[in-house]
Amino acid sequence: MSDAHIPFTGVVRALPASTPFVGPEALERTRGGPFAARIGANESAFGISPKAVAAIEREISRASWYGDPESYDLREELAAKHGVAMDEICMSAGIDNLFGVIVRMIVSPGVPVVTSLGAYPTFNYQVNGNGGVVKTVPYHRDKEDPEALLDAARSEGAPLLFIANPDNPMGTWHDAGTIQRMIDAVPPGRLLVLDEAYIEFAPEGTEPPIDTSNPRVIRTRTFSKAHGMAGMRIGYAIGHRDLITGMNKIRNQFEVTRLSQVAALASLSDPNHVAHVIAEVEKGKEDYRALAEKHGFIALPSATNFVAIDVGHGDKARAILKGLDAEGVFIRMPGVPVLDRCIRVTVGAPDDRAIFAKAFDKVIAALDV
Amino acid sequence: MSDAHIPFTGVVRALPASTPFVGPEALERTRGGPFAARIGANESAFGISPKAVAAIEREISRASWYGDPESYDLREELAAKHGVAMDEICMSAGIDNLFGVIVRMIVSPGVPVVTSLGAYPTFNYQVNGNGGVVKTVPYHRDKEDPEALLDAARSEGAPLLFIANPDNPMGTWHDAGTIQRMIDAVPPGRLLVLDEAYIEFAPEGTEPPIDTSNPRVIRTRTFSKAHGMAGMRIGYAIGHRDLITGMNKIRNQFEVTRLSQVAALASLSDPNHVAHVIAEVEKGKEDYRALAEKHGFIALPSATNFVAIDVGHGDKARAILKGLDAEGVFIRMPGVPVLDRCIRVTVGAPDDRAIFAKAFDKVIAALDV
Repeated sequence: MSDAHIPFTGVVRALPASTPFVGPEALERTRGGPFAARIGANESAFGISPKAVAAIEREISRASWYGDPESYDLREELAAKHGVAMDEICMSAGIDNLFGVIVRMIVSPGVPVVTSLGAYPTFNYQVNGNGGVVKTVPYHRDKEDPEALLDAARSEGAPLLFIANPDNPMGTWHDAGTIQRMIDAVPPGRLLVLDEAYIEFAPEGTEPPIDTSNPRVIRTRTFSKAHGMAGMRIGYAIGHRDLITGMNKIRNQFEVTRLSQVAALASLSDPNHVAHVIAEVEKGKEDYRALAEKHGFIALPSATNFVAIDVGHGDKARAILKGLDAEGVFIRMPGVPVLDRCIRVTVGAPDDRAIFAKAFDKVIAALDV
Repeated sequence: MSDAHIPFTGVVRALPASTPFVGPEALERTRGGPFAARIGANESAFGISPKAVAAIEREISRASWYGDPESYDLREELAAKHGVAMDEICMSAGIDNLFGVIVRMIVSPGVPVVTSLGAYPTFNYQVNGNGGVVKTVPYHRDKEDPEALLDAARSEGAPLLFIANPDNPMGTWHDAGTIQRMIDAVPPGRLLVLDEAYIEFAPEGTEPPIDTSNPRVIRTRTFSKAHGMAGMRIGYAIGHRDLITGMNKIRNQFEVTRLSQVAALASLSDPNHVAHVIAEVEKGKEDYRALAEKHGFIALPSATNFVAIDVGHGDKARAILKGLDAEGVFIRMPGVPVLDRCIRVTVGAPDDRAIFAKAFDKVIAALDV
């Protein structure tokens, strides 16, 4: 039967079935076995804080209780950490869900939204899912282009625009001054989403000061990357209290789990773990750079926990991805030209990196035949 | 400053700031100390399955990995359990989030939606959050009224209508035949949400057969109640594959945590635990019935893990709630007349019940002075 008998909204009826990402488990089911190295989803290979582990273990006996829908203790800590008020923070089950809330509070069907061609697909998924119209501008020299984004927002009449700093999938970044100029140039009545999922890995001078008096920017942060909690689904937005009030009007109140709340709180109390993760990631990025150079490729400078390696051409990158898959190595690559001349490799643990290096050598050698 | 400078949708701008529930943690912050008995949120007092505990402990080392966005293993088990296909099941971070997805795929701004006056508030929260217009019909003899709901859906032209069986907050239920007649009477082009969060606690003969060939009903289930996993946020919808396809177009792909997925899977393999919980809940309901009778009140028959105790009048119920709060006992009560002549008490562990009984005796004695 057709779905004509279901009273879908026009938006949902018109949407193609799509997902922003096929998960590694689905890829494993397709290929018929587990990956030897899972270094494609920018997950942390360095685990969660031992304090977070202990907090989870202590809290299991209370897993039957709903988590605090206000995430009070966590927002209190985060407010102190960022020098903002508690009501300038909104918690959610990860940045993906925050994008859902932010888009839904701004975008009605037909409304244009500006992002970069090839940037984080889940933002676009949420725009499409609300009937918005994604308008893109190209990357400029492998970076998202603040001026082009602003120009497009003006010319398209878009109330919402997106930038990630550092960027995913390229790993590039702008300095704080450039991002601050972008924030300052957002016209009244528009909202910039500044996604800072990878900010902990970026060099000093990347993060502009947080100014919650400005209602034209909302910043997103996560425990998925440097804190290693991707599987626990917990992230937050920081912004003007009127923005956060808007989010609180429509967000799912109870979606952050009780275990995730205590784990995130414990991880905040363990900056040494995050520092350890960042240091390990730096080592891994060095390894990848050396490996790339050995094969005559360039590893793009990265302010994230992954490295984009420029292999010259999209067809070659796709062939390498396919070859690595056959060797049991899961990585990803950007989806659009000219970014797709790169492969994107998450920093794994030393074992993962050794598996990747061996497989990469083999795949490149086979390609060169 | 006003929020006029933020480009909110008309829906969000018009919404009052509201939450469907104030959580017990917030109440504790207000009263300045923890509750002695937390028996107000219909959480399980009998914990999660030991197999689920073991599964969580095993999986903590992989908490840095995203959970499978397809929840494949879990849907495979659930499909077998319910005799449906995997693509007739949609997982989400609890039924609250499922309501968000279902409402969003059906309800555009201004569209009427039918439910019962005093029924589960989070469904209404999601309708309001999408700009829908909540239309209500009264309970009939403390039960949701299937015929009145259908009549209102027809007369209001509502594409979406809601019933919970068993019901929350009253704990009452209809037999399978009554619900089946309701399902059969849903006109083409409309969708009935049949919330069965408490179905495990209901007597034989409450659950109509699951028929996913019918696109006019979608059923919601949860691990929050009988499985004791409220804090882990995991629930699912069962329905025609076209309905599930619609949900998959817009749902948040990664929101169910990795730990919750393995815990739910383990709990499904431990029916003895669920049976134990159900048996303990029966004992607790007997205790509450006896306590109510001792005071000359009537405990409504309940097919859930809580009991509505009819104390005669809303003002009296509110006074009892206030008195119990002062004694450190957290319960809730229905929000509207005439349901609000009842208090709603979750079945606690024996200790909780003893604390409640003692406090209840004291509060009632003070009221009767």
